[in-house]
Amino acid sequence: MSNAVTERLQALRARMAEHNVDMIVLGPGANMKWLLGFFPHPDERPSLLLIGKEQEAFLMPALNAEGSRQNTDIAFHVWDDADGPDAALAAALADVGASSVKSVVVDEAMRADFALLVLDALPGAQHSFTDATLGAMRMRKGEAEYRELKMNAALADKAMRAAFAAVQPGLSETALADIMAASFEADGAKPLFRIVGAGENGAFPHHHTGETLIRDGDAIVIDIGARKGTFSSDITRMIVVGTPPEGYEEVHAIVEAAVQAAMAAARPGALAKEVDTAARDVITEAGYGEYFVHRTGHGLGVEGHEPPYITSTSDVVLDAGMVFSIEPGIYLPGRFGIRLEDIVILRENGPEILSELPRSAHMVTV
Amino acid sequence: MSNAVTERLQALRARMAEHNVDMIVLGPGANMKWLLGFFPHPDERPSLLLIGKEQEAFLMPALNAEGSRQNTDIAFHVWDDADGPDAALAAALADVGASSVKSVVVDEAMRADFALLVLDALPGAQHSFTDATLGAMRMRKGEAEYRELKMNAALADKAMRAAFAAVQPGLSETALADIMAASFEADGAKPLFRIVGAGENGAFPHHHTGETLIRDGDAIVIDIGARKGTFSSDITRMIVVGTPPEGYEEVHAIVEAAVQAAMAAARPGALAKEVDTAARDVITEAGYGEYFVHRTGHGLGVEGHEPPYITSTSDVVLDAGMVFSIEPGIYLPGRFGIRLEDIVILRENGPEILSELPRSAHMVTV
Repeated sequence: MSNAVTERLQALRARMAEHNVDMIVLGPGANMKWLLGFFPHPDERPSLLLIGKEQEAFLMPALNAEGSRQNTDIAFHVWDDADGPDAALAAALADVGASSVKSVVVDEAMRADFALLVLDALPGAQHSFTDATLGAMRMRKGEAEYRELKMNAALADKAMRAAFAAVQPGLSETALADIMAASFEADGAKPLFRIVGAGENGAFPHHHTGETLIRDGDAIVIDIGARKGTFSSDITRMIVVGTPPEGYEEVHAIVEAAVQAAMAAARPGALAKEVDTAARDVITEAGYGEYFVHRTGHGLGVEGHEPPYITSTSDVVLDAGMVFSIEPGIYLPGRFGIRLEDIVILRENGPEILSELPRSAHMVTV
Repeated sequence: MSNAVTERLQALRARMAEHNVDMIVLGPGANMKWLLGFFPHPDERPSLLLIGKEQEAFLMPALNAEGSRQNTDIAFHVWDDADGPDAALAAALADVGASSVKSVVVDEAMRADFALLVLDALPGAQHSFTDATLGAMRMRKGEAEYRELKMNAALADKAMRAAFAAVQPGLSETALADIMAASFEADGAKPLFRIVGAGENGAFPHHHTGETLIRDGDAIVIDIGARKGTFSSDITRMIVVGTPPEGYEEVHAIVEAAVQAAMAAARPGALAKEVDTAARDVITEAGYGEYFVHRTGHGLGVEGHEPPYITSTSDVVLDAGMVFSIEPGIYLPGRFGIRLEDIVILRENGPEILSELPRSAHMVTV
């Protein structure tokens, strides 16, 4: 096992002991990727990493065993399509001391049938998710991770500038999205999502970019992200084509003030909800509270959305090294939407913004 | 609600009654897509469709509500990031009569935390997965679905022929994969996977296509699929560059005989396991049983892998209209692998193969 994996497992077991967790179960996905640097091919075949107090074991579909063996030396309990996973699972559970498990942490993002396969085999055990153990470890990024995130942020800035240069009335949302995707791909990054919400479409926070044509007078929400290496980018900026829609400048200024309030509240030792509240209060006091329909932010790392979540109810204590978005928005149905999003890494003295792009709207003269 | 959705819900409730299922819970994913024609943006925010005996209800994150409303008129119980989903879930459960639920079917592929959110709210209820209800309905394809699958198969044949035309020693696995992806993309299909396993890499059934260079004497496993519209393709063929590795022809003939035996066994009324056994017996009798490490096939529809699974233990009764792969393989570690895969639709008189490509290896002279 690599030193990095050994160290992470050791630190994870310390957290398990601290929180009285007897076993952690992970499926192929982000948690396993963070811990081991890989995961077996994910499909409907049960494929599980079991981490007990002293031992770990893999439940491994036969056809992924050879390939996975190149990535880890953790013990495999291999099952094939002919026999099914039951006997191999029983052996893997025995390996990690499952008979005495009272408290099991389940990978929240794994398939329901994988999780229930284990939970049904442990009647009486309490289940919870990874927040206090693996999730808490994933939240703090080191400097190598910071550098990779910063590099990804620069590629996103470049893609956004490509959109600024290309946007004009008559272009479709999809065409503008494709221009940004091409920019990412030219730099070796894999585009992960690209929301282009023109005019009224911008009022849907998760608008499906489509064939709507950009018109004179549109405010356009552009939310893009791509991955190069293990980490990725995520940024939202606004474009205004021609004369802004009525009320645009006022609402943009309110969202910008909300971003700045959240930035000011984000300090090591602050609670995540205090950052959300700081942004939300600005918008609520300006009379737009009901149009800010989502949380203020989310963590970014192996996954595009991961802890810490910056919500009005989160008691997570922010700490130096945490990376998250600050992205308040105001969505006015039938009119337009505005979201401004920056990814920050929390430093001892406050947030460092990864992007170099100003948050003012890119104004297009038509 | 569209007629198609109303009919599917009605047919689903008939199956629920037949199997004493009181409630079905689906997350954003293939099952919901099949049933409703869409699913809300999938992320870590709980988003659930609850189907009771008489009513259905959505647990819906606020920021997806407006967008989803364009796709369905099922009642929404909206929650926002500030309040969390608990109250909305309780109301949605009340809507569908959850207090009397004794047996709940859970979407097997949904996130574990979504499933447990519901199951923890229904203590004492038995859980199972969708096999007997929604899964059974999804297995049988109509003629419109057949036509879309056939069109996708033709695009995969074309991509495979592009690989046949381009392959030569010195080309990397990735370069060959990219050529096939470009063929799919030129036809408006989204590439989903492309396994190119050259030489020894072919002995890993789920090899990660990489920078290995193709050499004279390589047998190459090529397994590709792409999606155009709702359905997708999936096909595996072999390329041999120059002189085949020792034993190649013998092993190819055995795998081909296994395919043909499975085809002969696949009839309406046969059990899925009889098809698996027919293929497996050919390979076992030839002395290669231990090198056929996976099932004989899987269904294909809204998902690339879905029921019916053609395994040695499946008692699913095959029926006309079912679409599945027949794909036996022999994997010889350190030497080469051979897999031959065709997608078939089961007709009254047996399987109709969707691809037009012969299963013989494409031989390249060097």
